[in-house]
Amino acid sequence: MKLIRFGEAGKEKTGVIINDKKYDTSAFGEDYGEAFFENDGLTRLSYFLEDSLLPEITGEVRLGSPLGRPSKIVCIGLNYIDHAKETNATPPTEPVIFMKSTTAITGPFDPIIIPKNSVKTDWEVELAVVIGKKASYVSEADAMDYVAGYVLHNDVSEREFQIERGGTWDKGKGCDTFAPIGPFFATKDEIADPHNLRLWLKVNGKTMQDGNTSNFIFNIQQVVSYTSQFMTLLPGDIISTGTPAGVGLGMTPPVYLKPGDVIELGIDGLGEARQVLVDYKQ
Amino acid sequence: MKLIRFGEAGKEKTGVIINDKKYDTSAFGEDYGEAFFENDGLTRLSYFLEDSLLPEITGEVRLGSPLGRPSKIVCIGLNYIDHAKETNATPPTEPVIFMKSTTAITGPFDPIIIPKNSVKTDWEVELAVVIGKKASYVSEADAMDYVAGYVLHNDVSEREFQIERGGTWDKGKGCDTFAPIGPFFATKDEIADPHNLRLWLKVNGKTMQDGNTSNFIFNIQQVVSYTSQFMTLLPGDIISTGTPAGVGLGMTPPVYLKPGDVIELGIDGLGEARQVLVDYKQ
Repeated sequence: MKLIRFGEAGKEKTGVIINDKKYDTSAFGEDYGEAFFENDGLTRLSYFLEDSLLPEITGEVRLGSPLGRPSKIVCIGLNYIDHAKETNATPPTEPVIFMKSTTAITGPFDPIIIPKNSVKTDWEVELAVVIGKKASYVSEADAMDYVAGYVLHNDVSEREFQIERGGTWDKGKGCDTFAPIGPFFATKDEIADPHNLRLWLKVNGKTMQDGNTSNFIFNIQQVVSYTSQFMTLLPGDIISTGTPAGVGLGMTPPVYLKPGDVIELGIDGLGEARQVLVDYKQ
Repeated sequence: MKLIRFGEAGKEKTGVIINDKKYDTSAFGEDYGEAFFENDGLTRLSYFLEDSLLPEITGEVRLGSPLGRPSKIVCIGLNYIDHAKETNATPPTEPVIFMKSTTAITGPFDPIIIPKNSVKTDWEVELAVVIGKKASYVSEADAMDYVAGYVLHNDVSEREFQIERGGTWDKGKGCDTFAPIGPFFATKDEIADPHNLRLWLKVNGKTMQDGNTSNFIFNIQQVVSYTSQFMTLLPGDIISTGTPAGVGLGMTPPVYLKPGDVIELGIDGLGEARQVLVDYKQ
């Protein structure tokens, strides 16, 4: 299944995509959040889809994040060798974890707000994994049982806040609109091999990132298992698996985003998104 | 007002403390979480208390965290000069921010689980600030308007996970039971001067930390204003303001917690808590 959420920000309704058409599933009566995943919502929703005549969503509609607000977003840093090199970081010997405030979540076609006092807002196309059931001390062998599916994520980052202002990376990762998620959530069965997906990102039409999840340093099993050794993952939680080379920080000289810039990004099987940069006052 | 939550973990009911007696406020019908604070719940609860004959809670009862699960816990690192010195850290020139998984939240008298493979579980008594309304780009002058009140927090930390395993501090801060919160939440009016509160922590009866919030490097106004420059704070969110000297990491040689150890801690006006350490298998 491919799930979407649509409508006014903060008041999104649920939907699905079937054969490239969008349908309203509001009648199912549950948001695609923690309780949904925890109570086997995906199975129940599949039955609902079989039994229901769904209203098609026609005309222009805003897409929100396809997922209700999770308890947390955990991100894996430096998970592609080429990205670690471009940022002059030593490739990690175990996964690097940081967290992103869930207030950063926004829709896949919403504007990205350049924060007040920001001079180094940067992009990061990522494959995000969505947790399907509570995970604590999960083994790598069992880890895929805890994955509900996948979604496209732009892990927008303010490099000065992240690296030069003291403290942890979290400071440069959680600004409002720094987590555009979607266009849709794909259940696990929709993606034949999550470790062989091309992911790419363009700025103003120019390709900046063009990688493949086959180049992960730590694969999805390792990342889910590892994270679950340090904190309990809840249904609906998001783990973003890191970005390939080609971020602004890695350019010589570095290139950062400015109002009016247009980001387009995509991953095989998970659709495409597009975000326009705006100043925080707009 | 002094708010509590009591009963089985995950199914806590709400209550209040009045003249050292505990009363059940379940009839108010709302948990003390984001929606409560967002919709002026404190004012509405105060009217409810005036108008209601509340059942007293008698006998032994488990206390949970006095707050429903927040959208996030933000912690301020190294916010007391003496603690920065004992950990051989340079005192920060601006607040150090990290995040703690909300799955770490537990009751003030619940056991603390030493995580699997942990050898450096440590304690940190802290004053935690609870946000009362949505805060983004708040000035220091206005910051106290966004504070709903205060609560005692033990920012339990695994130093190897935090410092020696790569990544950010978040890796050693979010293990299950690493955020005992309470015994009660005190509304802002209950605390005459939050910048002059003694806070202390004992391990097995021996005083390890004995500090005062008058020694903050960054005061509450600064911390709330600063954090709100990097991420939006939601009603019910928790900001933990850092710990004074006397943590296990700062001892020569370092001292860490083991099963059976007993932690007692308290802050002026915010009560006392007590936690027994257990192995993760128990």
